[in-house]
Amino acid sequence: MATIKDSVHDHIAVEGVAEDLLDTPAVQRLRRVKQLGTAELVYPSANHTRFEHSLGVYHLATRALGQLGIEGKQAERVRAAAVLHDIGHSPFSHNIESLVARRTGRMHDDVDDLLESGEVARVLALHDIDPGRVAGLVAGEGELGQLVSGELDVDRMDYLVRDAHHTGVPYGTIDTGRFVRELRFVDGELVLAEGNVQTAESLLLARGLMNPVVYNHHVARISKAMLRRATDRLIEAGAATAEEVRRMDDRDLTVALRRCEATADTARALDGRRLFKRAVWAELSDVPDEIVDADHDQLREFERDIAGYADVDPESVILDVPPRPEMRESTSRVVVNGEVRRLDSQSTLVTALRLAGHEQWRLGVYAPEEATDRVGSAAENVLGLDLEALVVDVRQGINATLDEFES
Amino acid sequence: MATIKDSVHDHIAVEGVAEDLLDTPAVQRLRRVKQLGTAELVYPSANHTRFEHSLGVYHLATRALGQLGIEGKQAERVRAAAVLHDIGHSPFSHNIESLVARRTGRMHDDVDDLLESGEVARVLALHDIDPGRVAGLVAGEGELGQLVSGELDVDRMDYLVRDAHHTGVPYGTIDTGRFVRELRFVDGELVLAEGNVQTAESLLLARGLMNPVVYNHHVARISKAMLRRATDRLIEAGAATAEEVRRMDDRDLTVALRRCEATADTARALDGRRLFKRAVWAELSDVPDEIVDADHDQLREFERDIAGYADVDPESVILDVPPRPEMRESTSRVVVNGEVRRLDSQSTLVTALRLAGHEQWRLGVYAPEEATDRVGSAAENVLGLDLEALVVDVRQGINATLDEFES
Amino acid sequence: MATIKDSVHDHIAVEGVAEDLLDTPAVQRLRRVKQLGTAELVYPSANHTRFEHSLGVYHLATRALGQLGIEGKQAERVRAAAVLHDIGHSPFSHNIESLVARRTGRMHDDVDDLLESGEVARVLALHDIDPGRVAGLVAGEGELGQLVSGELDVDRMDYLVRDAHHTGVPYGTIDTGRFVRELRFVDGELVLAEGNVQTAESLLLARGLMNPVVYNHHVARISKAMLRRATDRLIEAGAATAEEVRRMDDRDLTVALRRCEATADTARALDGRRLFKRAVWAELSDVPDEIVDADHDQLREFERDIAGYADVDPESVILDVPPRPEMRESTSRVVVNGEVRRLDSQSTLVTALRLAGHEQWRLGVYAPEEATDRVGSAAENVLGLDLEALVVDVRQGINATLDEFES
Amino acid sequence: MATIKDSVHDHIAVEGVAEDLLDTPAVQRLRRVKQLGTAELVYPSANHTRFEHSLGVYHLATRALGQLGIEGKQAERVRAAAVLHDIGHSPFSHNIESLVARRTGRMHDDVDDLLESGEVARVLALHDIDPGRVAGLVAGEGELGQLVSGELDVDRMDYLVRDAHHTGVPYGTIDTGRFVRELRFVDGELVLAEGNVQTAESLLLARGLMNPVVYNHHVARISKAMLRRATDRLIEAGAATAEEVRRMDDRDLTVALRRCEATADTARALDGRRLFKRAVWAELSDVPDEIVDADHDQLREFERDIAGYADVDPESVILDVPPRPEMRESTSRVVVNGEVRRLDSQSTLVTALRLAGHEQWRLGVYAPEEATDRVGSAAENVLGLDLEALVVDVRQGINATLDEFES
Repeated sequence: MATIKDSVHDHIAVEGVAEDLLDTPAVQRLRRVKQLGTAELVYPSANHTRFEHSLGVYHLATRALGQLGIEGKQAERVRAAAVLHDIGHSPFSHNIESLVARRTGRMHDDVDDLLESGEVARVLALHDIDPGRVAGLVAGEGELGQLVSGELDVDRMDYLVRDAHHTGVPYGTIDTGRFVRELRFVDGELVLAEGNVQTAESLLLARGLMNPVVYNHHVARISKAMLRRATDRLIEAGAATAEEVRRMDDRDLTVALRRCEATADTARALDGRRLFKRAVWAELSDVPDEIVDADHDQLREFERDIAGYADVDPESVILDVPPRPEMRESTSRVVVNGEVRRLDSQSTLVTALRLAGHEQWRLGVYAPEEATDRVGSAAENVLGLDLEALVVDVRQGINATLDEFES
Repeated sequence: MATIKDSVHDHIAVEGVAEDLLDTPAVQRLRRVKQLGTAELVYPSANHTRFEHSLGVYHLATRALGQLGIEGKQAERVRAAAVLHDIGHSPFSHNIESLVARRTGRMHDDVDDLLESGEVARVLALHDIDPGRVAGLVAGEGELGQLVSGELDVDRMDYLVRDAHHTGVPYGTIDTGRFVRELRFVDGELVLAEGNVQTAESLLLARGLMNPVVYNHHVARISKAMLRRATDRLIEAGAATAEEVRRMDDRDLTVALRRCEATADTARALDGRRLFKRAVWAELSDVPDEIVDADHDQLREFERDIAGYADVDPESVILDVPPRPEMRESTSRVVVNGEVRRLDSQSTLVTALRLAGHEQWRLGVYAPEEATDRVGSAAENVLGLDLEALVVDVRQGINATLDEFES
Repeated sequence: MATIKDSVHDHIAVEGVAEDLLDTPAVQRLRRVKQLGTAELVYPSANHTRFEHSLGVYHLATRALGQLGIEGKQAERVRAAAVLHDIGHSPFSHNIESLVARRTGRMHDDVDDLLESGEVARVLALHDIDPGRVAGLVAGEGELGQLVSGELDVDRMDYLVRDAHHTGVPYGTIDTGRFVRELRFVDGELVLAEGNVQTAESLLLARGLMNPVVYNHHVARISKAMLRRATDRLIEAGAATAEEVRRMDDRDLTVALRRCEATADTARALDGRRLFKRAVWAELSDVPDEIVDADHDQLREFERDIAGYADVDPESVILDVPPRPEMRESTSRVVVNGEVRRLDSQSTLVTALRLAGHEQWRLGVYAPEEATDRVGSAAENVLGLDLEALVVDVRQGINATLDEFES
Repeated sequence: MATIKDSVHDHIAVEGVAEDLLDTPAVQRLRRVKQLGTAELVYPSANHTRFEHSLGVYHLATRALGQLGIEGKQAERVRAAAVLHDIGHSPFSHNIESLVARRTGRMHDDVDDLLESGEVARVLALHDIDPGRVAGLVAGEGELGQLVSGELDVDRMDYLVRDAHHTGVPYGTIDTGRFVRELRFVDGELVLAEGNVQTAESLLLARGLMNPVVYNHHVARISKAMLRRATDRLIEAGAATAEEVRRMDDRDLTVALRRCEATADTARALDGRRLFKRAVWAELSDVPDEIVDADHDQLREFERDIAGYADVDPESVILDVPPRPEMRESTSRVVVNGEVRRLDSQSTLVTALRLAGHEQWRLGVYAPEEATDRVGSAAENVLGLDLEALVVDVRQGINATLDEFES
């Protein structure tokens, strides 16, 4: 049994299949994939990696399994999934995930091909563990899949505290000890035991606060967009295939971008932190649906139109449209008065997070600093930005109702 | 200049009027008044005092004044108010504040009488500072009063992080450095500078999460209610006047309760942590308005009725009805796109906190463990508890609107 | 099984005999006995109690037992001893321990009388645990006694990190996780496993650094001496017996000192932090052996002589002579190259700590601020302070040897 | 003025020449140079960089300058030196420093060539700051050079706490606030003010404890030796010049090693953490002087002899001989009783650290796991390892003297 010192969870004991998996190249590669990609350009201390995060997820999974009384082969599979859950990440984690997915068809949690060959396959076979079932757990399938990838999963618990520790932003500081202790399975559903509405709220609120301040900080989004654009050029220039990019680490991709003529300028800009600036930063209510829902090719078309309108090099315009706010009704479940209830039937704060996702959403148009004015005007024209007011309506509705009630 | 080591803010340099005020008996007494009263019966590490909190508030006030460019006599008054802002607390802080206020007419921030005599008056005079203006600041009056007692005050910033540090509950861990740095005065209003909607949200959410888990934990409420009841008996028994109780420290009150025949049993129960249990724990929507809005005498009458109905000693029933949820619309102000705006016009999460206050509110009826069943049934009958559903309505309204919008 | 939130170790699960013992008055009393007595007059955040420390010791003992594979009745006895190990403390912990011991014959770890009656005895009997064996463990007897009270005991591990957390002084921050993990029993001796010379050093060095900065800070020593002197007067005045004082909590003693005519002035001075100052602060090498080795009556005689010589009230002079530096050769044992070795045969730093104890030792004479000059001169005459130079000699010896070696 | 969030010092405000220097490629490059090189193979969270460390050093330098009352041009020069003090580091920081120094003649703090051209020169000129004087400060020259590079410098203060934060090893947790506050200049010497013997001790002890556990952990040393060996091969193979290597970042060097035929195997081994193991790990007293003092060519010769003797590929043997223990008498100075004194005349613990440096020194011989036995035997023969006992003598001397004294 090995013991590894972690800056978040202190000593982590590793044994069984997990210990052997740690030594595989696929997992060791995660030492060189930053957890938050280019976010270190905003938060200089945020250099933590998918490797230490995977260790942390393994640690919390092990404690949760112990708490839930799950043992034997079933538990070993979950522990294997915990160690392996992020090996499908391309360099710089989520930064170029959409690009890789568009070109290879695989998101980061689609790992079955990676479990079926090489050292990982050999280790799983040695421990008599079915790679397909591990891949299913990583994808969130089955009862135990909820523990690895679900609304109350140990993945999120680890990354919130770890990102807080390394960025210095305190909002992610949740009580992981309490979470792990209060997990229960009821009728095949992973839930939090009685008395934990606030525990569940704290997890979702932590993410809600980290989102705009860390994960979607505008500098993180701009640098990510520049990296993604450059990587696209790299592939188009034939310097690497999408599949090769998928399996690179951060160091490979950085050096490849520096060496390819089509991307060397952007590589140098990223190295020197000379980033594009915001020409437009628009709220959801100001953006026409056709823009929000445009696909990749349509967005590239808009970019070219904006560049044409502004009379600048097309490479000088990046249009960055995030997916629609993803937080649908929370599926977290908590025991209240002996019944399993959905968290959003118990917590107004969680309901409000759905609205907050809408409030915090921003469309960005980025350009070199000297061109932001021209590009900004062009983009307003091309994209037809205007105003709508759902969120405000709901908020005013709540306040009016409460004022009446309290008077 | 003295430097004092603090477990939260590290080194705190104290000088001027603040240094002299620290040495007065009125401030030194705060060393023996626990910040969270009986909450240490839930969180054993929560033994921090109003003294260290006052130091912390002084520290943050000093940094905020520096940031705001406020100097000279005006600044000294604020620093004096920061050191003195809690000297009006009775023993165990808020635990018996309502009782003391009912009998003496003074809440803890009503300190003008305490500034006009004794050592404090002497020190203020020495530094040529008007006690009346300091008392005004403590009460939140005037522009600078917002800094000492308002929605963005340094009092709250300190107590959230301090209570988190000492209870071990992480929810209060806000970014005080950022707060202090981003404060501005605009047209006489204390506001947060551009880009700080999340900063402001984090403060209110931190309090929203600490409320049910720490400040209103049911064991904290039960022990507080027992202490308040016993102190009432102590005064009725003539063992101390309300004014004497107001100026005691925790040690005086504990020993007085032990020595008075009418309160010795309760004192022993609190010492041994043998507490009443919940017979009823009802949501706001289940409680008739006449109960929620009853005054002290009416509540005592209800208690007697419940005891009679349950056929138990009247001393065995405590009816604990908190004030109606206090969070009216947030008055915090933040600069957004160059304009000062109210936070609740910008943040759905903050609007939701108003509803959460309603959700978290609980009426409690407490009794010795062996009597909870009987007392519970009696209370339901006497109080006529039933159901109403405002909060649920609003929540369902939001979800329905969003579902429609997102579909 | 109960779970208690601790600010140092996070969640602590308590069960079995420990859970029942926690509810006894003897253990609950520790909630009102400060861990560091009057040290909060130097470090305002240091209000932590023997109760939370006892919980922490229980927690580390439980983890160590698990690590060592000790189970069943034997383990339950150790857990009982961990919870109970400090119930023998008089108010303000070590502050008045020497006084209580002189008058009652009992140091704080002499607890057999406290285990043989009342609730504690009842709980131990219920769990079929022999109180005499638990008292033995508390006193450090037997193999397992080393875990509760020895050089590598969990008591010290907890108090160092806890005192660091609450004072804000970082020196005590040791790696408790590593300690607990590396403990072994070899031939009946508790040792640290291979590779832990630095682990063991860190514990002793942490204590070596905390000693002068926290535990023997001169303000802590002065206030302690004032408290001890006043308590002596309290007993002499017949206001309480030594045995009664032994079983008081901090609140009882404070109020008793306030109410007794002979001690009211000192009580008021301590309440207002108006403390004596140092008139003399002498190193070991400057103090004649007869003073260092004087007994209590002789010291009182010296005090009277100094007061007479200085022509001040005898109550205005306190002579404070600590025991000779206690750190004899370290008995900690560590496995090195497969053999159990004594730490001081492996670590020059630990050897050096013996000398550091000599260097840091100070004799103090304290008096009211206005009398320190006169009392200081008087004390130098009466005590015959002069110079000797052992420590310097050894240090110069080391440097000379090394210089020669390195040249 | 920019504000940057740091995980160690929280918010760091950057202005003046420092703000402009941060944006230069030479400083931005430090984002991609790990502070502890390959130590992340032991401590997976230790991915922090020279960039965040440089920010931290700037922050502490700014606070120290404020404390010391140093302003204007003089202060700007120090702040520039703080930001720039590490730009001379080659990839992986100290890991390949000796190799680069041997081949280019420049250690990491020899930066004058880097200040005289490019963006850095332009920014310094803009602020009218002489690059030569900044280079002098970085090299520790002059009075103010002590602040940037000396025994009490802010460099060490930052790296100890930062390395502790990121490795999770608590030993480096010193009280930086106190250090900065207590610095004084006396007769041109940087000293600590009265009452700070323990403060100074804590810094040296922290480093003394971090040394064996982090900086010289055997896995860190083995991986460093492998990296250094491979980089030597890379240069010998003509794939890069030493000067080019000096200016690479971690990513460049990693990819270069992967792509060069002569180093691809080692690159793969490092990527997969398949490291050499210890064949010999010998104490200073066991190693003949001629080995300890051998130069690079002699060591390579010994390696070949060992490989020949063991009949293995010369590439399978690494002989790793650290410099002789460097800690000569401490030059730290502290004010004691009004006089500036050398710390090692005041502190036995610091004197003992000289000996501890000797105790902790280890010669390593590393080889692939399957060859360690053969290589170990060969090395013992070739190197003629034997025993000597200075350290033990001194330790026994101290104990004997003390025993006599205490008896």
